Amino acid sequence: MSRRGFVAAAGGAVGLALLPEAARAAARRADPAQGLTVLFQGDSITDCGRARALAEPNRADALGTGYPLLIASALLEAHPDRGLRFFNRGVSGDKVPQLDARWQADALDLRPDVVSVLVGVNDYWHTLNGSYAGTAADYESGYAALLERTRSALPDVRLVVIEPFVLRTGAVTEAWFPEFDLRREAAARVARAAGATFLSAHQMFERLARRAPPAYWAADGVHPTLAGHAAIANRWLRAVRL
Amino acid sequence: MSRRGFVAAAGGAVGLALLPEAARAAARRADPAQGLTVLFQGDSITDCGRARALAEPNRADALGTGYPLLIASALLEAHPDRGLRFFNRGVSGDKVPQLDARWQADALDLRPDVVSVLVGVNDYWHTLNGSYAGTAADYESGYAALLERTRSALPDVRLVVIEPFVLRTGAVTEAWFPEFDLRREAAARVARAAGATFLSAHQMFERLARRAPPAYWAADGVHPTLAGHAAIANRWLRAVRL
Repeated sequence: MSRRGFVAAAGGAVGLALLPEAARAAARRADPAQGLTVLFQGDSITDCGRARALAEPNRADALGTGYPLLIASALLEAHPDRGLRFFNRGVSGDKVPQLDARWQADALDLRPDVVSVLVGVNDYWHTLNGSYAGTAADYESGYAALLERTRSALPDVRLVVIEPFVLRTGAVTEAWFPEFDLRREAAARVARAAGATFLSAHQMFERLARRAPPAYWAADGVHPTLAGHAAIANRWLRAVRL
Repeated sequence: MSRRGFVAAAGGAVGLALLPEAARAAARRADPAQGLTVLFQGDSITDCGRARALAEPNRADALGTGYPLLIASALLEAHPDRGLRFFNRGVSGDKVPQLDARWQADALDLRPDVVSVLVGVNDYWHTLNGSYAGTAADYESGYAALLERTRSALPDVRLVVIEPFVLRTGAVTEAWFPEFDLRREAAARVARAAGATFLSAHQMFERLARRAPPAYWAADGVHPTLAGHAAIANRWLRAVRL
């Protein structure tokens, strides 16, 4: 989060900026409307067994056991004075159309300052068993519309797009390529057009797969192991720098 | 883990030490008897909602959502060539006598190279409602016997003792002191006698409570928030340096 972004997120920040840092920190803590709200959105890779009935931020059980929990834990420890609030609203199995259908309640209504999205593997995977007929073009136009809608509702929002990725193991065969790559390339274009921070996760995992077998990072080729989630979290923390 | 400790843990390591690092790494991966097994033991602060029916190492759901998951994720990402295996066997509500009763199955039988224990808050807390009558001396002698038994069964084991801690909020009133402190001091003596790495978690949280209110680190004074778990995990990673 840039200084500018933070100040914008903090609302009526002109007076606040004149206070010493300790007083500003106390003000942020005292006023839940201040601080920063970070939302993680996506499919099962984001969901990670979160308790969906829980609405409060910063709860371990509501954040699941994947990269959202690792990112939230690290930032909540490092910045106790920031009034950080983390939500995970990933839902296993989701593709862009499902995100779109629940975007008002599960994204915009939370008034997030940062929205991090990881979606795309199901947009391809579910075409393999015939349960979905979306093309790469559908993915691109739907994803672009979702981010435009977000920017329109939340003009100061910071967007983070995590590239959809797979590892060549488990469910993921050579037959996935190059069709799967079309989704990756679409995600990169969508991110650029929306002014989002783009995390090239697929390339990261290709590099990591030279250090340990693909299954070490994602046993079925799609769902990261602990090591894979930690790699995403660290990449996110370095790129987003809240 | 020291080089010596690692080599000892790796078993017949003389021949292995002559191989180039890449070959040694491959050998460790190929042979599950090599590598390092790390066990987290304790009460609810360690348990953190883990799925107790799962026996395999390195599973997110089996590690719970607390410091064991954070430590395991970080080390599995950083050391893909080490053959690391992480287990969590914390059980909510446990005191030293409960650990002792299940120590063979839930600690020694796993043949861990590293055993990290956090126990003590219930050894005091449960005396407040009359459900337990153990004294600080009982805690100390029982804890010392548990670590001696571990060292005896696993001569090369590395022991880590996390100091029992509380924060002055929620369930924790001034009436806890100085009686609670007796357990902290006992844990430090037990750790020293057993040659364990000791993590002074209580002092760490007292320092952190000057940066944000105690409830930011442990809402009820006993169970850490995400920020509190991240603080323990980072302290552990710095102290243990696997």
